[in-house]
Amino acid sequence: MRIDLNADLGEGFGIWRLGDDEQLLDVVTSANVACGFHAGDPPTMRRICALAADRGVAIGAQVGYRDLAGFGRRRIEVDPAELEAEVLYQIGALEGCARAAGTRVRYVKPHGALYNTAADERGVADAVASAIALFDRGLPLLGLPGSALEAAAAAAGVPFVPEAFADRAYRPDGRLVARGEPGAVIDDPYEVVARAAAFAVQHRVTASDGSTITVEARSLCVHGDTPGAVYLAREIRRTLVDAGTTLAPFTT
Amino acid sequence: MRIDLNADLGEGFGIWRLGDDEQLLDVVTSANVACGFHAGDPPTMRRICALAADRGVAIGAQVGYRDLAGFGRRRIEVDPAELEAEVLYQIGALEGCARAAGTRVRYVKPHGALYNTAADERGVADAVASAIALFDRGLPLLGLPGSALEAAAAAAGVPFVPEAFADRAYRPDGRLVARGEPGAVIDDPYEVVARAAAFAVQHRVTASDGSTITVEARSLCVHGDTPGAVYLAREIRRTLVDAGTTLAPFTT
Amino acid sequence: MRIDLNADLGEGFGIWRLGDDEQLLDVVTSANVACGFHAGDPPTMRRICALAADRGVAIGAQVGYRDLAGFGRRRIEVDPAELEAEVLYQIGALEGCARAAGTRVRYVKPHGALYNTAADERGVADAVASAIALFDRGLPLLGLPGSALEAAAAAAGVPFVPEAFADRAYRPDGRLVARGEPGAVIDDPYEVVARAAAFAVQHRVTASDGSTITVEARSLCVHGDTPGAVYLAREIRRTLVDAGTTLAPFTT
Amino acid sequence: MRIDLNADLGEGFGIWRLGDDEQLLDVVTSANVACGFHAGDPPTMRRICALAADRGVAIGAQVGYRDLAGFGRRRIEVDPAELEAEVLYQIGALEGCARAAGTRVRYVKPHGALYNTAADERGVADAVASAIALFDRGLPLLGLPGSALEAAAAAAGVPFVPEAFADRAYRPDGRLVARGEPGAVIDDPYEVVARAAAFAVQHRVTASDGSTITVEARSLCVHGDTPGAVYLAREIRRTLVDAGTTLAPFTT
Repeated sequence: MRIDLNADLGEGFGIWRLGDDEQLLDVVTSANVACGFHAGDPPTMRRICALAADRGVAIGAQVGYRDLAGFGRRRIEVDPAELEAEVLYQIGALEGCARAAGTRVRYVKPHGALYNTAADERGVADAVASAIALFDRGLPLLGLPGSALEAAAAAAGVPFVPEAFADRAYRPDGRLVARGEPGAVIDDPYEVVARAAAFAVQHRVTASDGSTITVEARSLCVHGDTPGAVYLAREIRRTLVDAGTTLAPFTT
Repeated sequence: MRIDLNADLGEGFGIWRLGDDEQLLDVVTSANVACGFHAGDPPTMRRICALAADRGVAIGAQVGYRDLAGFGRRRIEVDPAELEAEVLYQIGALEGCARAAGTRVRYVKPHGALYNTAADERGVADAVASAIALFDRGLPLLGLPGSALEAAAAAAGVPFVPEAFADRAYRPDGRLVARGEPGAVIDDPYEVVARAAAFAVQHRVTASDGSTITVEARSLCVHGDTPGAVYLAREIRRTLVDAGTTLAPFTT
Repeated sequence: MRIDLNADLGEGFGIWRLGDDEQLLDVVTSANVACGFHAGDPPTMRRICALAADRGVAIGAQVGYRDLAGFGRRRIEVDPAELEAEVLYQIGALEGCARAAGTRVRYVKPHGALYNTAADERGVADAVASAIALFDRGLPLLGLPGSALEAAAAAAGVPFVPEAFADRAYRPDGRLVARGEPGAVIDDPYEVVARAAAFAVQHRVTASDGSTITVEARSLCVHGDTPGAVYLAREIRRTLVDAGTTLAPFTT
Repeated sequence: MRIDLNADLGEGFGIWRLGDDEQLLDVVTSANVACGFHAGDPPTMRRICALAADRGVAIGAQVGYRDLAGFGRRRIEVDPAELEAEVLYQIGALEGCARAAGTRVRYVKPHGALYNTAADERGVADAVASAIALFDRGLPLLGLPGSALEAAAAAAGVPFVPEAFADRAYRPDGRLVARGEPGAVIDDPYEVVARAAAFAVQHRVTASDGSTITVEARSLCVHGDTPGAVYLAREIRRTLVDAGTTLAPFTT
């Protein structure tokens, strides 16, 4: 029983901060580091890489749309060839910062609207997967199981690592209930912790219709953008450890 | 007798273009590729890397201040630690694009106001040199001989490659006559070509006081931002070849 | 018989230029000035405003998505309230530059992807029209007749000025043939000039099925992004003048 | 006895926030609203303008260098003509947002490095003052008394409103003790409040050498970027009211 905990980190820009990176780095085993397009600036990227390297936390490139004003949450119709180049650029930029910390980028995870679009649209997913393959064919892509991103990774010859969300409702077919639908986000922290344990230990979760479904995930996504979120992430970690799970980066 | 010809390339952004990259790539042996902070966007960076790789032209990171609106020509008082991170970021970003072309970044050259400031101020020069050392200690820094950049490269343990400017007047002490002073820029194309040959063949040039001085340069900087500039660069290349010089990247 | 000629101007950014603003300003009667989000920088905006004021050319705010890298040609899913604020910001910014030239913003025209999206989607169109109404209810909106933008202008109480495109094919129902479909763009310059005259003099044009349709347009959109385009715009102007048309801003 | 309290507001960008705008708006009588170049985005600008208008708080344009990554705190050597255009642009952009709130921009205050540079360098100060004069000659410039900005305002025919800083040490000649020198910033909140009252009631303050100097200020600058700062600003307001001072915008 072994699982990874991933979270978005380094999501400030310039003077602005978002979430408590230091605290979250003591919880997670993989850090999705923002690469400057939707958030993240070079000094922050260096700092997070150094802190992560110190703690044995794996560094992933959290690639996004070029959209500081919208935090990468606005869908942008980018030409796939341009998107491919933008993803390459972001991975490389983080690699520069990781090298300075004596380590390297270990995986890639799209952010926000790019994550959602790449989950649904194969053309977008192919651009992301192809950029990874061009950079380093051994670099895993972290994403939603069963998504277009998983298919694109397979086509590009890039390893795919499925992740699960303890605070999101699942449909009986294993896909997420869309945000905006009732019950899509699970607010009860006890239930979130219980679901995290179910994913990690039993690879199962209760779907929105009450049925039990199997979800194969090698990583759990946790959040850290509010004080409460950091506390919840810490509880998830403690519970998984107590349940006998080994928390470790999926890249090792 | 062997010399490198370097020029700034990929200095457009989005829909905007500057200079004729394709033509210039047939002239130079080293391409200083803009990395997105003062100019350059990911699709352009990829394209230039691919074209350069095809022609055996070495790819260098043309790093600059974060200043698209000012094309990196405005001096910005950036904290050295931030500047170091910004240079690392830019080198890494270009490395991502170079890898996709089956090659890698071979050297670094600061652009515009950063070039000038790093030539004069040791703190700025140290930030640039230190970023290179953190990325890859073997990566040469291309710059003005006798500048603070050369001293910083030595201190950081990074190879330094001196360059010369055929279209700039030199003082008797080997430094450039400052732009703005009379005669600082040499407009006569015949004289520019003759000085290029003098640098390459004799490692000498006539200084502003009429004396002959020695300038050890392993690369000549040429320009391509106007049709006339490309033509002049081509003439320099032809003249150097006719004089028996071997034109090759300094990195080989 | 009176018509306005409008064109996009000031579409450079920083060191980069696009098209020949000076030449085009001698052709058009209304200048759609880029406002800094997809193109245009403050010094350029001031310069175009001053040149336009000198020539009696009306100044319009060419508002676009925040997308320098994509020149505003990429559709971005912006929240309508944010888009409304972004349009207000752009109109105001240009108003600052227009005031310095002793004049003011006389109309608004969306650019690129925003033009197309606002033509089709009422929510986007409402955000644009509402921003104009908040700034100055008397400011006309220049756009495609029969579009969602026209309906939104009516709902917001903002004057709507319909424009026509001499180089685009029209469907029998008066809408444009979509770019990408065969024959959507008319390449023959003689035909373009003839259609311009047909719009201005007869308010009619031949549709894609050969039928003659009525198009009520108070302005013709011309282009200036290539030397050929400027020449063609000049020919259109000459032909309209020869046909006895009065060329004047629709705002007078 | 009448004084204005001004503070920087709306200094977030996109998802990021800085300080508690709502709370501070209940303390101040003038709001220096960031205009998008160093901080501030259109939706935030609109929101602050609406909140300020509701409370009778005067809206000022907090103009800065184009430097989101450095929060406008990095000095940039901008050509004066470009800077003038950038200031015009920012004032106009805020005017657009203010109009939508049924009000207008009432004054201008430079931010960060621009404030400091314009205090010392007449060329920079002239660019700022000239931009204001071009926009509206009646718009006051809020700044440091005795600075180059005051001289530039006089030369441009723009009203100048001197401000004082309760948390900064003053030299015997009435200038601020430079940040970085010992004792430049006053940390003791009781002393800060006492000095605020001294400025407002007696127009006097104790200088760094113990002498008492006269400081004519029509506005006091307070800060709100930390919870403690908001609390301190509130204490200053309460103390001034208790001392019989009328708190009101200097623009009325």
